[in-house]
Amino acid sequence: MSRLWNLTEFGFHADRVNHYETLFTVGNGYLGTRGSFEEGHPDSIAATLVNGVYDHADGMLVPELANFPNWIPFAITVDGTPFKVVTSTTDLMKPPEGVIFGYERTLDLKEGILRRAVLFRAASGNVVRVIFERFASLSDVHVMAQRVIITAVDGAPEIAIRAGVHGNSMNATALHWNDDVQVISTDEEIGIGATTRQSGYSMGVAARLTGPHPATASATGLILDLETRFSLEQEQTVTFDKLVGIFSSRDTDENPLDAARAKALRASEIGYDALRAAHVAEWAKYWDTADIVIEGDDECQLAIRFTTYHVLIASPRHDENVSVPAKTLSGFGYKGHVFWDTELFTLPLTTLTHPSIARNLLMYRYHRLEGARHKAKANGYEGAMYPWESTDTGEETTPQWSDVQPDGSRIRIWTGDNEQHISTDITYAIQQYWRFTGDDDFYTRYGAEIVLDTAVFWGSRAEEKNGRYELSQQIGPDEYHENIDNSVFVNRMVVWHLSTALNALSWLRAHAPADAARLTSQLDLTEARLAKWQDIIQRMYIPFDAEKGIHVQFPGFFDMEFIPVPKYQPRVTSVQAILSHARSIQTQVIKQADVVMLMALLGESVGAPGGADVKTVMRNNWDTYFPRCDHGSSLSPAMHAWVAARLGLLDEAYDQFHHAAHIDLADNKGNVRDGIHAAACGGVWQAVVFGFAGLHIADNGALALDARLPAHWRQISFSVNYRGEIKRFTVTNPR
Amino acid sequence: MSRLWNLTEFGFHADRVNHYETLFTVGNGYLGTRGSFEEGHPDSIAATLVNGVYDHADGMLVPELANFPNWIPFAITVDGTPFKVVTSTTDLMKPPEGVIFGYERTLDLKEGILRRAVLFRAASGNVVRVIFERFASLSDVHVMAQRVIITAVDGAPEIAIRAGVHGNSMNATALHWNDDVQVISTDEEIGIGATTRQSGYSMGVAARLTGPHPATASATGLILDLETRFSLEQEQTVTFDKLVGIFSSRDTDENPLDAARAKALRASEIGYDALRAAHVAEWAKYWDTADIVIEGDDECQLAIRFTTYHVLIASPRHDENVSVPAKTLSGFGYKGHVFWDTELFTLPLTTLTHPSIARNLLMYRYHRLEGARHKAKANGYEGAMYPWESTDTGEETTPQWSDVQPDGSRIRIWTGDNEQHISTDITYAIQQYWRFTGDDDFYTRYGAEIVLDTAVFWGSRAEEKNGRYELSQQIGPDEYHENIDNSVFVNRMVVWHLSTALNALSWLRAHAPADAARLTSQLDLTEARLAKWQDIIQRMYIPFDAEKGIHVQFPGFFDMEFIPVPKYQPRVTSVQAILSHARSIQTQVIKQADVVMLMALLGESVGAPGGADVKTVMRNNWDTYFPRCDHGSSLSPAMHAWVAARLGLLDEAYDQFHHAAHIDLADNKGNVRDGIHAAACGGVWQAVVFGFAGLHIADNGALALDARLPAHWRQISFSVNYRGEIKRFTVTNPR
Repeated sequence: MSRLWNLTEFGFHADRVNHYETLFTVGNGYLGTRGSFEEGHPDSIAATLVNGVYDHADGMLVPELANFPNWIPFAITVDGTPFKVVTSTTDLMKPPEGVIFGYERTLDLKEGILRRAVLFRAASGNVVRVIFERFASLSDVHVMAQRVIITAVDGAPEIAIRAGVHGNSMNATALHWNDDVQVISTDEEIGIGATTRQSGYSMGVAARLTGPHPATASATGLILDLETRFSLEQEQTVTFDKLVGIFSSRDTDENPLDAARAKALRASEIGYDALRAAHVAEWAKYWDTADIVIEGDDECQLAIRFTTYHVLIASPRHDENVSVPAKTLSGFGYKGHVFWDTELFTLPLTTLTHPSIARNLLMYRYHRLEGARHKAKANGYEGAMYPWESTDTGEETTPQWSDVQPDGSRIRIWTGDNEQHISTDITYAIQQYWRFTGDDDFYTRYGAEIVLDTAVFWGSRAEEKNGRYELSQQIGPDEYHENIDNSVFVNRMVVWHLSTALNALSWLRAHAPADAARLTSQLDLTEARLAKWQDIIQRMYIPFDAEKGIHVQFPGFFDMEFIPVPKYQPRVTSVQAILSHARSIQTQVIKQADVVMLMALLGESVGAPGGADVKTVMRNNWDTYFPRCDHGSSLSPAMHAWVAARLGLLDEAYDQFHHAAHIDLADNKGNVRDGIHAAACGGVWQAVVFGFAGLHIADNGALALDARLPAHWRQISFSVNYRGEIKRFTVTNPR
Repeated sequence: MSRLWNLTEFGFHADRVNHYETLFTVGNGYLGTRGSFEEGHPDSIAATLVNGVYDHADGMLVPELANFPNWIPFAITVDGTPFKVVTSTTDLMKPPEGVIFGYERTLDLKEGILRRAVLFRAASGNVVRVIFERFASLSDVHVMAQRVIITAVDGAPEIAIRAGVHGNSMNATALHWNDDVQVISTDEEIGIGATTRQSGYSMGVAARLTGPHPATASATGLILDLETRFSLEQEQTVTFDKLVGIFSSRDTDENPLDAARAKALRASEIGYDALRAAHVAEWAKYWDTADIVIEGDDECQLAIRFTTYHVLIASPRHDENVSVPAKTLSGFGYKGHVFWDTELFTLPLTTLTHPSIARNLLMYRYHRLEGARHKAKANGYEGAMYPWESTDTGEETTPQWSDVQPDGSRIRIWTGDNEQHISTDITYAIQQYWRFTGDDDFYTRYGAEIVLDTAVFWGSRAEEKNGRYELSQQIGPDEYHENIDNSVFVNRMVVWHLSTALNALSWLRAHAPADAARLTSQLDLTEARLAKWQDIIQRMYIPFDAEKGIHVQFPGFFDMEFIPVPKYQPRVTSVQAILSHARSIQTQVIKQADVVMLMALLGESVGAPGGADVKTVMRNNWDTYFPRCDHGSSLSPAMHAWVAARLGLLDEAYDQFHHAAHIDLADNKGNVRDGIHAAACGGVWQAVVFGFAGLHIADNGALALDARLPAHWRQISFSVNYRGEIKRFTVTNPR
């Protein structure tokens, strides 16, 4: 059913140019190319981002992914009129600027191909149909391919084309590339090579054009094109293919431009059709396990394929030294940095459906243990303390200050200092990966070291005071409340973390004694240290209100002003923005699932101090925190959906799920122009699998479900790779 | 499942103001009110149109429905800032013009209620939520109701409201209303009464406001308001209800303003909640039989409820002297005139689900037989020749000339002269009504007279020449080809018509001899006349190409230039507009289902001259005409869907169905601002029931199905009132 796989834009939406550029990104885990027009557009933000190629430009607070040469330009003139999207004219028969009669753009999620068809009349009156197609090959990630089909629908026009690789926008956001750019411009090929200024990565992009008419090269600065002109008879069709190679010094020992040239040559020998067939076949393998089929809700069916697509194109397949940027490779938002969004939101999808990808992502963290150890040391702690924002180096790359505000001030950003739960989030992802894959090799060689060394950090971080252990100056998931003492999320997760670490060490001692010995020695896991962990587990302060039977987000939370968040509807703005930052931080408005997130991660094992009934407490927590949450973060709704489903609150669960699934499609945060919300995309998958389907590993070690589906969902199907075996699940709604 | 009943606009779309005003029309068969904003908008085209109240203003070529006073104005100021939809501001905390944080508008198709919720901040910084609700009562069509709920979400604002009835736009499109307007303006009620200039209809609209604060009247010319001011405490909510009465001299013997005042008073005594409950209960009765449930296609499920809703709100329930305007009562397009769109497109839905409505619509034609006889006589023919465009008078109201074109010329409009098949279309609708309802009373007293007197017209109209009967200077459904000789659609339908008339007379003679005698005498149905009809039936020229095995749309059609219509994609423009009117009429581009429409109406009984296999001919016809049709008329896609389904071409059928179902929702003709495409809406229903489900009356007189569903439709359900009994059908797709 292609209609449930195709995201289509009918008609051109001038006010949505940047939104759709993001939605229509193509990618392959190695790179992402935004869905910009081949002919350009005044509002366009074109970008090709290659994962891992960060650069810290002069004058910027932090490094960012450097924009690559634009490989999609394909200009067409029809009888001298430049082809472009012009929607109205003074003269329909002889439109001075040309005019389009129709426009349709479709991202085929199943095949990972972006297509656009436009019917265009030139000033001459002649009418052509142009069909554009592009993909970033999933079967060879260094290949990008573009096809342009021009048909003379009415009249016999003179056509000129220019198929280019344009380097003029490479330094548009900041000065990342050195001036000594290598340029190749012959009638057979065009290419650009360059090196980043600070980080010293080099890259190369090269293109070849195939078609019925020989081309000649033209170069103006970094604007390189292959040009040709020809006449079309009425109803005649021509097809041109531009085949592009791309490399960076991160992934080849050769000169990247040479590698790119060789790849473009090889791609042109293979040809577009064969490249596309291989690409489509590769996509089929990924969808085989990653697809979730929802019967009874077409809208959410398409939406979840869209969100899964974006997780899949952002997840590296062949590289242990990159992760998933918070805005994927689809925009400049968050500068390509990596947050907890990966480990707790996007990574579980790959852990359960394509564990080799998840392993890469976890290895990214393993290879950056040194950065985490630097951070711990610099902050006066032991062990490994992961940075809140991470890039290639593994060092903390959270900016300390915001951009300049309208009143000239800058706001201090505390997350790099105090949002320390990231280390536990990574440990959570490692444990989840290990439990679902049974990958003892990974765990003993790499994973356990992270689990234990981050536990070492927490052991040194916990503060023994007031007759218990506390954690001051933390930021939990609810970032509206910064630098608070005793976040119940953080404190409880640290208890979980230390317990997990102790269990990990016991397991290693029993099953991998050499690794246990190595880590004990290397990480200085003395008996005294382990005893302290045990003591922290026993005596950590878990804020709880026994009278109300709720976990307390942090002591003092309920002393602040109450805001009736549900009355702030309808809105696309956060309640924080409505109240102002200064006021909202002194209110009970919560940015995102915090206590609710804790319940998602730990389920009933979250526990209830003092013998309270945990089910009752969980429901009380929901009733308390859900109406205080403004979902100012895109991470929030999916977690709420998951927990509401577990609590049997299916209407709320569905509302939250629908919201989460449409954050990018509906742009209901208003910032999709900056890139896809990766965490929301991954959260949507988890809301279905862990939330509605209730997937879990039962006590007997088998996968089990505890499904509670929204009333109108007839059936859902999904797959899980459980310890190397593909398990297929279909849940039919008894209602 | 409210999501499959609610049409929702998320966020304000500045470029869609007029489109959504049309979509969000509320109505009750008596009137329609466009979905304009209570506070107004600079681009708004507000209208309340009462069916039948036509007026022929000075300087206009033809009469049109006269716009009534606007009953929806409800202005609100918050701390002095006028409430309106402002989407950006220089200052979010103290927005100089106010600002909205969110906006959601929903038309509840099940309940016939329009709702809008907006979160608004005034310049003062205070935040209010405003919820608007309105409906045109279906249980008492002279009542319109509006509720406004204002909540102080943040802060304690001063609120001022003005709830009005505004007559200033009554004469905006043309001078329809006399100057001696009656105005009522007291603190209890406001009202406007006026009389149309040419037609002399009078009307009255009166309103009362109920709420927690007493109001005072204000009047500036025809802008009448009830005003009040008050303070709100934080989180306080106020509710105001405006209850409106409306009458015209068409539906009361009293002074309409007096009747409206009495109705508004009575409505305010009953109260909004009780009025709404009665309204919703009435809607449930209509949906009980009119709803089509499509399982497996949420998008089309919502779309078909939308199209059915618009047929239902445009179809008169209590009046034999109005019909369904081509653009319903939702806009000024086609000036409220009635075309064949009613009989062949919208009426079948009511014939099969609410036959009392269909009867009214047919009685509208019965009461206008005199107009049809005038037209026949004026053109030198006998019998009854219905006007192509009809209003209250029954006289031909098709303009002879178009509006002035860009080059200063006017185009001659020939449809009023030569699109004569309207008389047969009406007969077709009568026969269909009679067969499905068994309403012999209607048939013998009214219906047969139309069937026979329009047959008399055709008997006098047919030209005996070339050794056969011909019909010259006709316009078939394909209006791109005007004034052609021997349209196969027209000629074949006339044969059907005359056969039907002869059968009708035989039936009357057997079952209602008095009526037979009356009509024989009154219509001069001599044996000679009947013999001529028989002769025409035998010797009418049916253009047919025996070699190709196709019906020929008209002789000479295939001599014109061939245009490869399918290559003119994607487009929202018609191919005619692309080619120009002058050129397209000399090509084989077809505006809409013509031979295909003939196959829809007659099915296999369309026949195949010379002993050709009719199934083969029908398929050949499809293969010939479908790729030549540009669907320049909104009537086209649904008929194509119907026929394609019958031919088993389910992919094409679904494409056409989807197109038809979204003509208004997607505005894929670009002119929804002018009103709903009533015929497309009715055609969608027929495409499902007659097309996909294959509903027909079997030889044994029972209803039967011959279903062929699109592959992804799991099941459809619908109801038919067959001869007074509700038959429920559910078709499950075997695929």
